[in-house]
Amino acid sequence: MQRIYFHRDSKRGITETLDWLMGEVKELAEALKTDNKKAVEDEFADVIAWLASLANVTNIDLEKATVNKYKNKCPKCGQSPCQCTF
Amino acid sequence: MQRIYFHRDSKRGITETLDWLMGEVKELAEALKTDNKKAVEDEFADVIAWLASLANVTNIDLEKATVNKYKNKCPKCGQSPCQCTF
Repeated sequence: MQRIYFHRDSKRGITETLDWLMGEVKELAEALKTDNKKAVEDEFADVIAWLASLANVTNIDLEKATVNKYKNKCPKCGQSPCQCTF
Repeated sequence: MQRIYFHRDSKRGITETLDWLMGEVKELAEALKTDNKKAVEDEFADVIAWLASLANVTNIDLEKATVNKYKNKCPKCGQSPCQCTF
């Protein structure tokens, strides 16, 4: 994602990239109301793509951030499977 | 994520999982207004975690969906780096 989009993302900036991400989450919500699996898959891919773009412009390593917080267990209860009750 | 959370996600259902995801995107937006890099990283991780949960309950392979759409190039212009002008 960084190789494909960083030059564009860096020009766009954080606020506008965040707006795009929120738009894609809404499109995913709309797609989930349908039975079109391909459309749902595409919208999931778009959300990931824009989340990766946002991580790039904010200089965050998305994979590292995720692994750091979710080290194969729930960060709240420390268990896998998670045993939280909420 | 599936191993940690699927038993809970499957009980929660699509609509409520989507609500959680949207809540996490808003928390990420709030964190980005601060200079707290650790908080931003944690919120990115939470968005990924809830997106993965949503993919699990909707029976979508998130990685496959993303690779299918973004095969190392922009799906709109077919180039890498992307040459789209919007």
